[in-house]
Amino acid sequence: MPTLASAPPFWLRDNCPCTDCRDPRNGQKLFQITDLPAGLTAATVREARTADGSPAREVVWAPDGHRSVYPEAWLDAHLPGDRTAPGDGRTEDDKELWDAAGLAGRFPEADWSAYTTDPAVTAAALENVMRFGFVLLRGVPARDRQVLDVARTFGFVRETNYGELFEVRVEADPNNLAFTGARITPHTDNPYRDPVPTLQLLHCLANAARGGDSGLVDGFHAAALLRAEDPEAYEVLTRVPVPFAFADAHTSLVAHRPLIGTDPGGRIREIRFNNRSIGTLRRPAEELDAFYAAYRAFGELLLRGELQVEFRLAPGDCLIFDNTRLLHARTAFAESGDRHLQGAYADIDGLASTLAVLRGKEATA
Amino acid sequence: MPTLASAPPFWLRDNCPCTDCRDPRNGQKLFQITDLPAGLTAATVREARTADGSPAREVVWAPDGHRSVYPEAWLDAHLPGDRTAPGDGRTEDDKELWDAAGLAGRFPEADWSAYTTDPAVTAAALENVMRFGFVLLRGVPARDRQVLDVARTFGFVRETNYGELFEVRVEADPNNLAFTGARITPHTDNPYRDPVPTLQLLHCLANAARGGDSGLVDGFHAAALLRAEDPEAYEVLTRVPVPFAFADAHTSLVAHRPLIGTDPGGRIREIRFNNRSIGTLRRPAEELDAFYAAYRAFGELLLRGELQVEFRLAPGDCLIFDNTRLLHARTAFAESGDRHLQGAYADIDGLASTLAVLRGKEATA
Repeated sequence: MPTLASAPPFWLRDNCPCTDCRDPRNGQKLFQITDLPAGLTAATVREARTADGSPAREVVWAPDGHRSVYPEAWLDAHLPGDRTAPGDGRTEDDKELWDAAGLAGRFPEADWSAYTTDPAVTAAALENVMRFGFVLLRGVPARDRQVLDVARTFGFVRETNYGELFEVRVEADPNNLAFTGARITPHTDNPYRDPVPTLQLLHCLANAARGGDSGLVDGFHAAALLRAEDPEAYEVLTRVPVPFAFADAHTSLVAHRPLIGTDPGGRIREIRFNNRSIGTLRRPAEELDAFYAAYRAFGELLLRGELQVEFRLAPGDCLIFDNTRLLHARTAFAESGDRHLQGAYADIDGLASTLAVLRGKEATA
Repeated sequence: MPTLASAPPFWLRDNCPCTDCRDPRNGQKLFQITDLPAGLTAATVREARTADGSPAREVVWAPDGHRSVYPEAWLDAHLPGDRTAPGDGRTEDDKELWDAAGLAGRFPEADWSAYTTDPAVTAAALENVMRFGFVLLRGVPARDRQVLDVARTFGFVRETNYGELFEVRVEADPNNLAFTGARITPHTDNPYRDPVPTLQLLHCLANAARGGDSGLVDGFHAAALLRAEDPEAYEVLTRVPVPFAFADAHTSLVAHRPLIGTDPGGRIREIRFNNRSIGTLRRPAEELDAFYAAYRAFGELLLRGELQVEFRLAPGDCLIFDNTRLLHARTAFAESGDRHLQGAYADIDGLASTLAVLRGKEATA
């Protein structure tokens, strides 16, 4: 356990909790990092008490004489050491990866009336989105535009060129394969957008057609499998930006991003997989060979039956899922049958915020 | 120049333009990459013509016998070679980096009435956002909620916990330093959000207070300077995830992202810099020392006077800027004075799409 005296001085000072350094209302820092004097050191350290009487340490800083009082509890929890640092909930380290068998007996679902009235149910449902990548809400009123109200229970709708919401049903002149009766293999939505919508909602209003069953695949789990089974392919897919594109008469979107996005520590953070919208890669020939071999390997892996959880949406079901992690699929359906979903995009940082506030209220209740 | 016969077969086949492979309405691919047979090769290649009579090459594929006809013009433009591949407009390679002197005589601005009536002016203004990171629209009606109409000229508003729009003026009980009269040094907004809003709009309704001048710094340019002057500091800032956080009674947002985000090729793609919302880093002590030295170095660099373009917003001015690239600042102002901006967030992929559609219309006009 490092001592306070050996803590990195700029780090420690940047975390000074005094009201000159931080706005007590929101924790925002009131100084710039460049305001701190060069050669900053803890001149004296002694035992002290916080305003509420908790044990603390007082540091008087040289050369500027600023005085910081750090609660012992904060120091115990934060001084650099060998403990594992918490993440922001978005990489593979913060998820529970799954295959179909792994979800047996614990399919993430919640009843709408409980979800909207019991904060513990709300929190558990949102927790499922963070942990497993999705939750299925049952018994949501099967009415027009209700999907927007579902999104507003935890966050904000991301409007796009498809509108505030989009209709998933057979259309006479579809601008997207989704609006036909065709089978759609596992994919993420809108990879040609940057920022990509991080959440998708699909609310079922009717599903009387033959076929049209739904499937989900944990893309983080699939990418981790690829890394274990074919490290070279995995590396290629984290490294090669893929030109995703979508265009119609009013829209021309493009984003160059890898199929497997990682954070600077190499942890899986974002999957984009959608063959329909991959444009023409412009790379040296040998890189194209390597990319296509890796892309096909990942594609084959994503089609393994054991990875995909399958279910059928009934009217009133609303699926909420992490579009940066999960791939969704559907079987073909008879275009003459009545199948109608309404979809919307939203963002997962807002959902995580709502969950954190609920958990905070539980903790202090 | 590589020949068609030496082109990577899966790459070439994935780009087959036939109507079985691509939906002619939107260019979406109608097959999965895993549908292509293993051992794919171009069995025969011969001269041909497209349906409209243009010179082309016909490939018959083994083992499945599929026939692809590639226009010569497409092959000339896309076959792998030593030409530079276009980017998606979002990294440093696609930008014109600037300092204050570099903008002298070409400050990006446009008149609102021309912007809303002349597509060439609209396109030039949006091009400035992509190229320089901002444009200042002059003469926008100084009325409540007008900023949302400005955003809708090119895209979609990103609603957040601050609302569809936020008021930048002195508030009695501010939840953010922005809503006081304090000086604010160059920063990006909402680094605690992931996805971060990629565009910000600030629309001036009143600016009669003493002080309150605006400044912008090109964060890509600053990061490139840091890379040239202090490569170790630059490397640290691209590698260390920083825990950004914001919390009030209704919100608890967190995102762990580096100050300098790069694409897999190492190109600068996203700057996050906001001392107010940096939480407690949890890293080994020696990494914290290195991070704080680098962070201070970048902070000092961002304060260099020659990097910052300065101007004063007048009522009716609306600034649109890339929040993943530019840092914005304001001088302190007298809290008794009348200063009122309305701000909104939006996303740059939608702006780039609007620009691309306008340019496409110009090209075919």
